[in-house]
Parts: sequence; C-alpha cells; structure tokens
Amino acid sequence: MRILITGAAGFLGSHLSDKLLADGHEVIGMDNFVTGNPDNIAHLAGNDKFIFFKRDVSNYIFVPGKVDAIMHFASPASPNPQSKSGYFNLPIQTMKAGALGTHNCLGIARAHNAKFLLASTSEIYGDPLVHPQTEDYAGNVDPVGTRAVYDEAKRFAESLTMAYHRFHNVNTSIVRIFNTYGPRMDLEDGRALPNLLKQALLGQPLTVYGDGGQTRSFCYVDDLVNGIIKLLYSKEHLPVNIGNPVEMTILQFAEAINRITGNKAGITYVDARSSRDPQRRQPNIERAKQILNWEPAVDLEEGIRRTIPFFKSKLGLA
Amino acid sequence: MRILITGAAGFLGSHLSDKLLADGHEVIGMDNFVTGNPDNIAHLAGNDKFIFFKRDVSNYIFVPGKVDAIMHFASPASPNPQSKSGYFNLPIQTMKAGALGTHNCLGIARAHNAKFLLASTSEIYGDPLVHPQTEDYAGNVDPVGTRAVYDEAKRFAESLTMAYHRFHNVNTSIVRIFNTYGPRMDLEDGRALPNLLKQALLGQPLTVYGDGGQTRSFCYVDDLVNGIIKLLYSKEHLPVNIGNPVEMTILQFAEAINRITGNKAGITYVDARSSRDPQRRQPNIERAKQILNWEPAVDLEEGIRRTIPFFKSKLGLA
Repeated sequence: MRILITGAAGFLGSHLSDKLLADGHEVIGMDNFVTGNPDNIAHLAGNDKFIFFKRDVSNYIFVPGKVDAIMHFASPASPNPQSKSGYFNLPIQTMKAGALGTHNCLGIARAHNAKFLLASTSEIYGDPLVHPQTEDYAGNVDPVGTRAVYDEAKRFAESLTMAYHRFHNVNTSIVRIFNTYGPRMDLEDGRALPNLLKQALLGQPLTVYGDGGQTRSFCYVDDLVNGIIKLLYSKEHLPVNIGNPVEMTILQFAEAINRITGNKAGITYVDARSSRDPQRRQPNIERAKQILNWEPAVDLEEGIRRTIPFFKSKLGLA
Repeated sequence: MRILITGAAGFLGSHLSDKLLADGHEVIGMDNFVTGNPDNIAHLAGNDKFIFFKRDVSNYIFVPGKVDAIMHFASPASPNPQSKSGYFNLPIQTMKAGALGTHNCLGIARAHNAKFLLASTSEIYGDPLVHPQTEDYAGNVDPVGTRAVYDEAKRFAESLTMAYHRFHNVNTSIVRIFNTYGPRMDLEDGRALPNLLKQALLGQPLTVYGDGGQTRSFCYVDDLVNGIIKLLYSKEHLPVNIGNPVEMTILQFAEAINRITGNKAGITYVDARSSRDPQRRQPNIERAKQILNWEPAVDLEEGIRRTIPFFKSKLGLA
C-alpha cells in the first residue's frame, strides 16, 4: 500500500513509518515539525520507499499520486505546561490539528477511496469515573477546562470520522491510544515515565506527586504499533482501545524504575501537582483481543531496557 | 454597536436581530439558508440598520467595515431524522459550522477586537446523569454516537472559544441554550412542542411516546433573547445556561396544550421512538440569575398563546 502518515516525524508516527516500510509498504510522511523532530526520520532519508513533505495538515494539503491509506497522527500531545510543544502552549494549533486536520485527511480519503485511520486517545475519557475504560464509556471531559483543547479536539475528530464513515461510506478506523513509551519519546513530554526514567538515569531521587497512589498503564511502542497496523487492515469502524492493561501505582512504577536502572537515590514525595490530572487510567482491551487478536507482548522491565539507550543518548550519558 | 449575527435567518438569529435593531444597534446578518429561512428576515428588508449577506460561515468570510460583536448562531439544530435541514441529514455541515465556522468567527473577533458570543446548547450535556444540569457538569455524550455530530461540534466550539479567550485574550461569552419555542420555529423541527402544538391546532390526538414520563423544560423565545443580550453585555467568559427551569412531563405538557388550544381529540400513546433521546433535561439557572440578574418571565400558557398565530399561519388555518 501507499500510505500517508501525518505527524510522521513524531514519536508514534516515526515508529509506524519504520514498521510499515519494513512490511514492504510505501510511506508518504508529512509533518510541520511543531512537535515532530527531524531526527526521528533522519535514518529514512535514503529509503526510496519513503518520501517526506514539511506541511501543516491543518492547512490545505496536496498528496502527489494515489494513496491507499491515510493515518492521521499529527497533533501536539504533551500535557506538560512547561513544554513549548505541549498542547497547553499550542491550544489553537491542537484544536486545528484535530478539526481542520482531520477534515482535510478525510477529504483526501474520500477522494482517493482510501482507508482512514484516526489516532485518538484515552484522553477522550477525561478523568474517568468508570474503570477500566471500555470503548462505550462516554467519558468525563469538561469542554471548557484547560485540558479540553486536546480532549475535545480528539472527540470532535472521532465524531467527524464516524460522520464520514456513515454519510460518505469512507472506510475508517479509530484507535484510542493509551500511555505509550519507548525510544524517540519526548523526554520533556511531562508524563510520568520520561520524568522518572530521566531522573533515575541521572542518579537523582525520583519525584512522586502526592502519595503516588494514582495509577497508570504503560504500553511499549512496538506493541502499540502492532495493534494499530492490525486495526489498519481490519474492517472495524468503531473505536478500539490499544494500550497495556497492566495497571500500577506511580509509586510501584518509580520503585521498578529504580530497580531496573540500579538507581540508589530513592524517592522524593512532593505535593500533588494538579487536581485535574486523571487519578486512574487503564484500558479495557477486550475489543482489541476479540476483533484484532491483539494484546501487548512486551513487559515493563523489557520495555524499559529497550528504552534506556535512547534516553542515555539524549542525556549525553551514552 | 455593529453586530454580526451568523444564522441570522434562523429561528433564534432572526429574533436576536429584531431585538438588537429595536435597541438601536446595527446588525449584519449572515446565513446560507441551509436551515435558515428568508421569510424570517423579510420584514427587515427596508431597515437601513440591517444588512444581509448570503454566505456559509464554514467557508472564508469577509465582513465589510468594523464590527463590535459577533454572535455565532449558524448551525443545523433539529434532531428530527426526517428533517432535511436537521443535523442527522447534514452531519458534516453541522460539524463544519461548529468547528470551521467558530474558528472563522473567532478570527474576525480577534482581528476586530470584538466581543464574541457562542450559541452553545444543552445538548453538550448529552443524556445527563446529573439533574438539573449545572454548568460544571461534564455531560454524557458518546463521541461516536449518531447525535455526536451536533453535540461534539458544540463542545468543540466551546473549547475553541475558551482557547481564544485564554490564549488571545478575546472577550468571549458562551450561552448554553435549552429548549426554546415561539414564532418562526421550524414546525418540522421534530421536538415535542411543535409536534404537539401542530397536532392540537389540526384537531388531532397528540402523540405521546412511551408513557410520556420523560421531562422537558420550555423557554419562550423572548425570554431567551433577553438573557442572551444580557450575556452579550457582560464580562462573563464561562458558559451560562439560559432556559426555563420549569420542568414538566411530556404528558403534562400535552394535556396543557390540549387545554390551551381547546383541542378535544385527546392523546395517543405510541412506543418510545429511540432510547437515545434524553429522558430528562432541565437547566439550573443560578448562574444566569446571579451574574445576569436574568430569569424567564413568560409562563407556558402565555408563550403558547403568543406562538399559536404563527403556527396557524404556517398550517393555513389563519
């Protein structure tokens, strides 16, 4: 297939590009580098199955030649208020990527009679009151809260995708991506894993907010990519959660990181950062198991070991 | 003030135009007539304070001269699956009016340093699990449900409005409009009031779905318009519910309609139409009372009496 990937220079987009190229497909990468990083696709420069365009998917986009599939992964995604490329600092770009970007991609999918796959997110569940989250849970998102620029953009993108499927008969799929980690992730992304792993590799005590009782589930990027590609080939139109259902508290996670990295500096407890941070987030993946015959294969220890070399290189420790 | 109203030929937009003109303002009306009706503004043709442009707010829009305020009321809003101008039959136009239309209006508001008022809706609460609905309730909307094309478009519009307020310092307000009725409403809109009033005036038995125990709250259009104009003048940026909190069951409502119209044909019970129809919807209007010193003044009997001549005229009974 000839596949257009928006956000191809991002963490997930670049891994997807690698896997699809390895599987023999052609990839048209697109990114405006607002959050994506040219380093993530530098190794593809000599690959004649990969072409790249620097372009903003929220503006008019033109695709040279026929495409068979479009995967819309372009969006700021970091919840870190300090990150210049996080959605708190790019609120309108984030909303445009979700609405105008999705609209542009769906228009191309319709014109090319191509498959469309939307990268959605567990953030559409907001601060969930149902646990673990099943795909039929309507979520708990305040549309005028500060996080809404990301959450509502993705909810809108899902609705628009379903509208194109139902009304224009476009072959669409929607993946709801839960916390993912691995090489090429943004060390300043603001989420628990990069923060803690960075501290551990620098020999610092790990910062745990509140009592560390809030939970997270972390999926290794290769597992996620395998699930997404299975969804790409499927005929499933309703959303499918892809993530690792193994839930642990942030405290358990910090202890595991210290053990795996051999960090002896322990843990520091500080006040909870924000009451708007979700307290729990864990995917129910029964639909992915049944429809895609998919489940994650890489456990946390193995995933962290595969991620450490990238972090060391970024931290100048390699 | 010089005020741009999108959807000016719609039910609410035309009443807003009338009231603002009566208050001495200039109005620039805009409508693409997809759901608006030229009849609603025909009486303004000779008014030199009113100019009109036939235009789709989801496309690029140009405003001649300076504007002081923009009120974005353009959107399909009828939940009637049989209505050609309802959002089930215009799903993508509905999403574009909410996303691209709001984006265009906010761009103009920012460029003109103008006030922006968004017409949002009680539909952002979906099928509410909290009753009555306060503005801090996050709602219960399935982003991939068939009603989502309207609900998520308005949720997105609210988020984008707040993003422009917070990030670009645009002076914005958001009104969440509950069920409203009055002259110029669409008789085929599919909601309970026009359906029942039409049947009563035609001397037919009123159709009540299920046991008629589902509730609604109905606000007369003049009350709504007064609340919206107070909000326009205010400095309130967070959403404000405007509606009539007097809740009644559909059965009580049908009985009242038969009484007011003198219809002797009684009531017919039929199976519930759809389990996705909200079972209850009632505004908590404490914020409107406190912030705007507003509450509805027209009771149901008086509102129905003022509405009947319009219905009779449309039904050829005048």
